[in-house]
Amino acid sequence: MNASKTLGEIAQRIGGEVEGDVHAVVGGVASLESAGKTQLSYFASPRYRKALLGTRALAVLARKDAPPVEGMNWIRVPNPALAFAQVAAWFHPRAPRPPGTDASARIHPSAQVHPSACIMANVFIDKGAVIGAHSVLFPGVFIGEGVVLGESCWVYPNVVLMEGVVVGHRVTLHAGVVLGADGFGYAFDAEQKAHVKIPQVGIVRIEDDVEVGAGTCIDRATTGETVIGRGTKIDNLVQIGHNVHIGPLGLICGQVGIAGSVKVGAGVVLAGQVGIADHLTIGNRVMVSAQTGIGRDVEDGAQVSGYSGFRHVDWLKFMLSAHKLPELLKEISRLKRRLEELEKKEDP
Amino acid sequence: MNASKTLGEIAQRIGGEVEGDVHAVVGGVASLESAGKTQLSYFASPRYRKALLGTRALAVLARKDAPPVEGMNWIRVPNPALAFAQVAAWFHPRAPRPPGTDASARIHPSAQVHPSACIMANVFIDKGAVIGAHSVLFPGVFIGEGVVLGESCWVYPNVVLMEGVVVGHRVTLHAGVVLGADGFGYAFDAEQKAHVKIPQVGIVRIEDDVEVGAGTCIDRATTGETVIGRGTKIDNLVQIGHNVHIGPLGLICGQVGIAGSVKVGAGVVLAGQVGIADHLTIGNRVMVSAQTGIGRDVEDGAQVSGYSGFRHVDWLKFMLSAHKLPELLKEISRLKRRLEELEKKEDP
Amino acid sequence: MNASKTLGEIAQRIGGEVEGDVHAVVGGVASLESAGKTQLSYFASPRYRKALLGTRALAVLARKDAPPVEGMNWIRVPNPALAFAQVAAWFHPRAPRPPGTDASARIHPSAQVHPSACIMANVFIDKGAVIGAHSVLFPGVFIGEGVVLGESCWVYPNVVLMEGVVVGHRVTLHAGVVLGADGFGYAFDAEQKAHVKIPQVGIVRIEDDVEVGAGTCIDRATTGETVIGRGTKIDNLVQIGHNVHIGPLGLICGQVGIAGSVKVGAGVVLAGQVGIADHLTIGNRVMVSAQTGIGRDVEDGAQVSGYSGFRHVDWLKFMLSAHKLPELLKEISRLKRRLEELEKKEDP
Repeated sequence: MNASKTLGEIAQRIGGEVEGDVHAVVGGVASLESAGKTQLSYFASPRYRKALLGTRALAVLARKDAPPVEGMNWIRVPNPALAFAQVAAWFHPRAPRPPGTDASARIHPSAQVHPSACIMANVFIDKGAVIGAHSVLFPGVFIGEGVVLGESCWVYPNVVLMEGVVVGHRVTLHAGVVLGADGFGYAFDAEQKAHVKIPQVGIVRIEDDVEVGAGTCIDRATTGETVIGRGTKIDNLVQIGHNVHIGPLGLICGQVGIAGSVKVGAGVVLAGQVGIADHLTIGNRVMVSAQTGIGRDVEDGAQVSGYSGFRHVDWLKFMLSAHKLPELLKEISRLKRRLEELEKKEDP
Repeated sequence: MNASKTLGEIAQRIGGEVEGDVHAVVGGVASLESAGKTQLSYFASPRYRKALLGTRALAVLARKDAPPVEGMNWIRVPNPALAFAQVAAWFHPRAPRPPGTDASARIHPSAQVHPSACIMANVFIDKGAVIGAHSVLFPGVFIGEGVVLGESCWVYPNVVLMEGVVVGHRVTLHAGVVLGADGFGYAFDAEQKAHVKIPQVGIVRIEDDVEVGAGTCIDRATTGETVIGRGTKIDNLVQIGHNVHIGPLGLICGQVGIAGSVKVGAGVVLAGQVGIADHLTIGNRVMVSAQTGIGRDVEDGAQVSGYSGFRHVDWLKFMLSAHKLPELLKEISRLKRRLEELEKKEDP
Repeated sequence: MNASKTLGEIAQRIGGEVEGDVHAVVGGVASLESAGKTQLSYFASPRYRKALLGTRALAVLARKDAPPVEGMNWIRVPNPALAFAQVAAWFHPRAPRPPGTDASARIHPSAQVHPSACIMANVFIDKGAVIGAHSVLFPGVFIGEGVVLGESCWVYPNVVLMEGVVVGHRVTLHAGVVLGADGFGYAFDAEQKAHVKIPQVGIVRIEDDVEVGAGTCIDRATTGETVIGRGTKIDNLVQIGHNVHIGPLGLICGQVGIAGSVKVGAGVVLAGQVGIADHLTIGNRVMVSAQTGIGRDVEDGAQVSGYSGFRHVDWLKFMLSAHKLPELLKEISRLKRRLEELEKKEDP
């Protein structure tokens, strides 16, 4: 953690405005709940009102309209979460890794590793691969034949990039990520009684500024490319099938599964454990609730939820109704009996 | 990629029949969408009719009854996907790996590694393990004590085979697969207030021609065996519990979870994110839709879908009805009021 | 496997009582289904009655009230599963690993590795890390800067502990586990059109006697700690987000996903593929059925099931009703028509 800074210095750097003691010295950053009395926190949503009122933080990044707190120091900013991200990065810069290649790394003579890259112990780099400037490869990383990795990428321990994978600049791959394993494609041979493998000879292409969470697998295309668009962020243990194309600036949460050949637009948010069936098209800015299963195309801007991808508002109505269903069945029986009584009276 | 071939040569090799220019030279294979004008593609389902009509491919593998396309070259075959698999393998044979053991591999003196096997950097092979002819172990693979790996297996980077695991011939294990980690078994000790581990002392046995996707975990049996049957194909990030038995020729898609002691028959298809509760029996040729949760035994040949394993046709009916449920609740109230009106008139 | 023992010796050791031949010699342990005629098994639930009646086991650990079996030898115990765990551990003690550090391990000079620890090939231990007595690190393990690993921990191949992670005593981490990858946190910068990373600078803390299954990922906190409580057992491919706190003695089954900042109480059971949305509080002793999605807080002792976390009993009622829903829609239409008939007669 870097040296302390005053509220005034911080506000100046991020373009905020101090309400309170501009000379107060900030020793670090923390969430509202965990902040100690020298720490700076942030308030980004009414959902955390209770935490705001109970925080011991020295100061809070917040919009003008945050609830008042007795004696609090504020830095007023239009986007508190963004401001917090910037201040936290200032206090906790990523520790640089010295350039150079560990003696135990196994690098093919035809591979090109930029001299400013850091190649740690037991890294394996195969024929013709290219590693860009300032990129860092942690121990146990495997770089297959012909892989191209851009500049300033961080590739954490035991990540595997199979042959031909192309990765842009400033990409982060967390531990255990697998890019470019074979897609899941077979043709059944009824005579031989065997699933015959369809060779998976395409690649995976990761655009700039993508981050991929631990254990996530992104399969190579059957032919052509599987693509993750610029600035998209993917969480842990996500499965992305062959020939999937994901647009820029998406957020894909933990354990999502996307089957083969799905096209996902720009700025899409998929919450945890969502599943998308193969060959579908998901429009731009679509938001999908956790665990939703999507079985048909989704238009731009839609919010979808629940089994088989209800529209979000319809799913909420359904779930409310669902709780009443057992009682409903009884009600129908009662109505039926009363109707029978009436009918008997009519036609005795 | 190998040298070019004419349509005539290809048709002869796979037993198909050319309609069009038998001398046209094919430079490679691709999907209908991505094929360039020298490439061969395939049309396997009416679902891809639009892609067929729009393709730039030089020629298409298709059945006789495919929709006509102006000026297209065809190779007529009974099973286009299978033919495509064969042609693609011809154009893209798996690059052979030279036999021999890398100096950095750590091999126990009592292990037997066939001289035709390829053991790459930083592979670890423990006591008494056996590696068959022509098998390839990529960097970072761990082979536990007493493991038996058959012939012509491909074991990709950082795969882990714990002690005693038995693998047949022509098995492919993608990056990060874990075979033989402990099953999840504990007994609660109320006095000590502790979950006491039930030792997991069985093994995993993988039969011939199985393929296991990246990151998939198959647990060892408590006692006895966890078994994956001949020719079954498993996708990425699948979890298979202790003592599960899966029959031959199954297809198990991404992120499926199968709890302990489940028996799965032959030729079963489990779509993505399916879950099966412990100790159940799933018959032969069962097909299960994506995200289905199975909580009871399933008979041979059944198609099941949705929460708690509806029969597929019932689930479709339910989902259609579900959309109408909120309106239904209102309708019931209206009927009730009308009935009350009538009853009042009858007995004023 | 150790030498044989008599039923009498085993009963004495675990505090059970033999019914049958105290001198019978037990050669090992096995499940009811797989036991051979020299093996000891156990009967813990009426669910396995059929297996009990068909078993070939020499003897069975069971409560007094187990169904009678002709000619069976019994060891009567109050908790058969617990007794089985103890006997199995006696027959199958974990093979000890010799202390010492493999020459290929890369250990930073400032790291402290206890001389009784076993550090296998290609392990990487970064600056200032501490490895406790009798701990075993398998090949390919990565230990980040400042990690503290307690005594008698088993860390299986290719496990990754990122910087600052703290692990207690007697913790088992199965192959491919990732502790301390970054949590999934971004703030959107509308001007730059980018998801800006919120630095994840907290840690993961694993308390004593925890076991973590293969491929499971537990993210570091944004600030503060992600905590797994004493004696909690976690299965394979589970995703646990930043700042999650899980109480002691939980059981978390395969492929569960827990989003950021969730608090889970003591003794909670989460069945396979359960998902919990962020910032929720799950009480003590809560039991959650497989695939349940939890979208709101759950009180102590509750059983929850199904989509959006129904109370378990309500979900069962709903699922029963759900099967009747399509028929219900038709019934409503019929009732409506009959009502219309009656109304016409009343007011013609």
